[in-house]
Amino acid sequence: MTDTPQMNGAESLVHTLIDSGVEVCFTNPGTSEMHFVAALDHIAGMRCVLALQEGVATGAADGYWRMARKPASTLLHLGPGLANGLSNLHNAKKAGSGVVNIIGEHAASHIELDAPLTADIEGIARPMSHWVRTSPSAETVGKDAAEAVQAAQVAPGQIVSLILPSDTAWNTGGVVHPPLPVPSAQPFAEDMLDAAARALSGPDSLLLLGGGALTEANLQIAGRIAAKTGCKLLSEWSNARLERGAGRVFIGKVPYPIDMALETLKPYKRIVLIGARAPIGFFAYPGKPAVLTDPDADILTLAPAGTNIDAALSALCEASGATDTPPAHVAEAALPDRPEGPITLDSLAAQIARAIPENGIVMDESVTTGRAFFPVTKGAAQHTWLNNTGGSIGYCLPAAIGAAIACPDRKVLALTGDGSAMYTVQSLWTMAREKLDITILVFANHSYQILRGELTNVGVGNPGPRAIDMLSLDRPALDWVQMARSMGVDAQSATSCEDLEAALQDGLAHDGPFLIEVAL
Amino acid sequence: MTDTPQMNGAESLVHTLIDSGVEVCFTNPGTSEMHFVAALDHIAGMRCVLALQEGVATGAADGYWRMARKPASTLLHLGPGLANGLSNLHNAKKAGSGVVNIIGEHAASHIELDAPLTADIEGIARPMSHWVRTSPSAETVGKDAAEAVQAAQVAPGQIVSLILPSDTAWNTGGVVHPPLPVPSAQPFAEDMLDAAARALSGPDSLLLLGGGALTEANLQIAGRIAAKTGCKLLSEWSNARLERGAGRVFIGKVPYPIDMALETLKPYKRIVLIGARAPIGFFAYPGKPAVLTDPDADILTLAPAGTNIDAALSALCEASGATDTPPAHVAEAALPDRPEGPITLDSLAAQIARAIPENGIVMDESVTTGRAFFPVTKGAAQHTWLNNTGGSIGYCLPAAIGAAIACPDRKVLALTGDGSAMYTVQSLWTMAREKLDITILVFANHSYQILRGELTNVGVGNPGPRAIDMLSLDRPALDWVQMARSMGVDAQSATSCEDLEAALQDGLAHDGPFLIEVAL
Repeated sequence: MTDTPQMNGAESLVHTLIDSGVEVCFTNPGTSEMHFVAALDHIAGMRCVLALQEGVATGAADGYWRMARKPASTLLHLGPGLANGLSNLHNAKKAGSGVVNIIGEHAASHIELDAPLTADIEGIARPMSHWVRTSPSAETVGKDAAEAVQAAQVAPGQIVSLILPSDTAWNTGGVVHPPLPVPSAQPFAEDMLDAAARALSGPDSLLLLGGGALTEANLQIAGRIAAKTGCKLLSEWSNARLERGAGRVFIGKVPYPIDMALETLKPYKRIVLIGARAPIGFFAYPGKPAVLTDPDADILTLAPAGTNIDAALSALCEASGATDTPPAHVAEAALPDRPEGPITLDSLAAQIARAIPENGIVMDESVTTGRAFFPVTKGAAQHTWLNNTGGSIGYCLPAAIGAAIACPDRKVLALTGDGSAMYTVQSLWTMAREKLDITILVFANHSYQILRGELTNVGVGNPGPRAIDMLSLDRPALDWVQMARSMGVDAQSATSCEDLEAALQDGLAHDGPFLIEVAL
Repeated sequence: MTDTPQMNGAESLVHTLIDSGVEVCFTNPGTSEMHFVAALDHIAGMRCVLALQEGVATGAADGYWRMARKPASTLLHLGPGLANGLSNLHNAKKAGSGVVNIIGEHAASHIELDAPLTADIEGIARPMSHWVRTSPSAETVGKDAAEAVQAAQVAPGQIVSLILPSDTAWNTGGVVHPPLPVPSAQPFAEDMLDAAARALSGPDSLLLLGGGALTEANLQIAGRIAAKTGCKLLSEWSNARLERGAGRVFIGKVPYPIDMALETLKPYKRIVLIGARAPIGFFAYPGKPAVLTDPDADILTLAPAGTNIDAALSALCEASGATDTPPAHVAEAALPDRPEGPITLDSLAAQIARAIPENGIVMDESVTTGRAFFPVTKGAAQHTWLNNTGGSIGYCLPAAIGAAIACPDRKVLALTGDGSAMYTVQSLWTMAREKLDITILVFANHSYQILRGELTNVGVGNPGPRAIDMLSLDRPALDWVQMARSMGVDAQSATSCEDLEAALQDGLAHDGPFLIEVAL
């Protein structure tokens, strides 16, 4: 027996997370997490980022993973704190992001008393998590934490929820666990390789890419395959992370609106999937198909998410004899002309293309406003483009926080609809607090514009005043400049192309967050 | 065969809800709910209230139930929309409020395709719901809706989640179902009546009341019992709804801080529970008991939540021979002196006591700031006081919306900490849109002050800078006046008692929402 003071469970957790490479904790803690907070206080190595609502914390962890390629932790207060974070965990799950949630729980003896904050935390976690565990004792917390970090890194990335009863945090007996290896990705479907190589030939064949296939190097390989075989390239409707810009292989997207998607995919008779899923409708619409490809198309899944995408693309390139073929679709540096006058969807797209900074990160939740942005930004400075992959709005601002923390030397341009931005508006405060280099464009069309189209798509013609009212944000109009300033973020409004150009220059020149309200 | 157009499922739902007495729908709809929106558009009788985040919608439904004593509906978009509303459903569940959630779902044929918004909606609903059902077809929607409204009214009130696949909404064949009767409450424990009457005698006996026991009439009866038997009266730490003020029987509360709670409850050797649960700690604390009453106390549960509370109190009164005894503890009309100078917790309490309007509704989530409010407001004008019963912060502003809609002729005074208010700050916009008569006091202490105390309670002495920083909201300071104005709510800041008095007079005089930032 020595007189070394014993470590408590919370301390073993913090040490283990840090040793396992987890460097950031996005949090809103409560009483049941106070020992964790105390451990974070006296153990160096974890950046703690406070969020005023847990949706900000989980969305930030998603953005962090996508850019850092390693998990952040979140620290959430019991069932309700986790519940507030669920919708952005949903988005993270659909993006294939790895997130390590640490969720406080009452002490084991207290749970049966059904105190006000008691809830079925495992039950709340399960629908949005790949891995759920409640640590039974201070002794097991370290090991559980190491396994949680490992589980978060199962390809492409998993949502992990580790529940920590407060007595397991405050009791002594904590044991720091060494880091566990990052699990290898599953092998791709090598037996389909020859068939895939044969399928790709001519403009009625499509190589559809997603997830890890959208790195600069993998797109370069896809470009070679396209050049050699004449196949077309497309990415999914929405991509967790896509490298783009002048000098890189350009790839289009399957459109969101169902009729455009059907039209786009109709020509393809042979489709090879790498990191992507077979295209389906975002929603079901009466009288329209749910599967968007030609019913007679042959679809070959060469490398589903979670498999070794890099190896699949390289092998396909070799099997296609394209190894030495120069890639097709390399985007030339080209910026649209400087737009003038009123802001339209087209002039806005041009303005954004001109403003994207070299090596910038574009966080895109521009919904209807942004449909024109993608082709026009093809030849802009090199940048990374991130989409909302789960469809739960309110992802953009939190994810921008995570991206900015993962990449402190890169500028983040956050493009968001006003309806989306309001979902997690508390993000602005965290941006100000952490002085994050994020320029935000809020597209103030004062409505859930997308739903006006959807009313027609589902067959509701001539919506009346009550329906229109439920999709409108103009009564009262939100004042985004005041909103931003109330949380310590400087802001300007832009009503013309000239205003917008000046505001973008100001915002991007200045270190720290800056919000531009784009009046539409 | 006739040529009458057939009703679709969504229309049968709206008709059935209205026929069953559901008059309000708090919503943020999406594509899968468009047929419901269309039905709400052309069928009169449902007030639709748009929220910019679902936590606002579910919290509003909680506040509505508490004041209207009948359920509102919510309309939520798929799993993530429900997820955003869960934490205020948790609060509503702990309050015994009845809420009818209508949750859109993909068409049945679409679910298996695992579209971006697909999630396990039943799994998400279950932890916070008493009743969960997915309606299988347009034909069943009406019946399911009538049963849902009935289930929400099982005493004391239940959370009901009815999931509506979009094809059940758009298919024809909908059948309006007639309203089902409100279920009767369970009988109270009549076999314990004599023992309970014997137990209550002298100042070491306690009648502990909660839920439905806190109506004006029931408190009058409790006052008679106290006068006759010499027992003490207390209510739970937090009450879903309590009638108070001059001329009514005053009842104190079990304090929140654990040491005060233990001290308060220590004298009682015999405790009778009506509508209340045996007092336990809000959290577990190392080395402190979880059960707050004397370990030797006899506790008799005469009428748990869900039983006939009114009958239990009347029977107990009769068994105690107190039927003709004038009630004890009737509060005299008495206001504190007009405070002057700087705002302190005591002068603030005095100011609030003086400001409470006749027949006002006080929505209280003042957390640490509000601990002084309760005794001082005892002799104020008659009012209804509502607390956060589930401990998930962010309940006050949404619940104020629901209360104002339930009681358009009464003024609502919302008392909220700044940390709590930020959780569901989007509520301000809905208040402006609906022109609700709510005066909001935001207590800007710029910290999660409660957690500073909790650090000590759980045994963490001398917190360091990182810990303090995780509990502080002062970097940057939130500007509540700009925040409110950005969402169309007029606002003022008060830094002295004189400012505050003037601002309260302005706010309460004026119809519509008004926010006062109270600098602490």
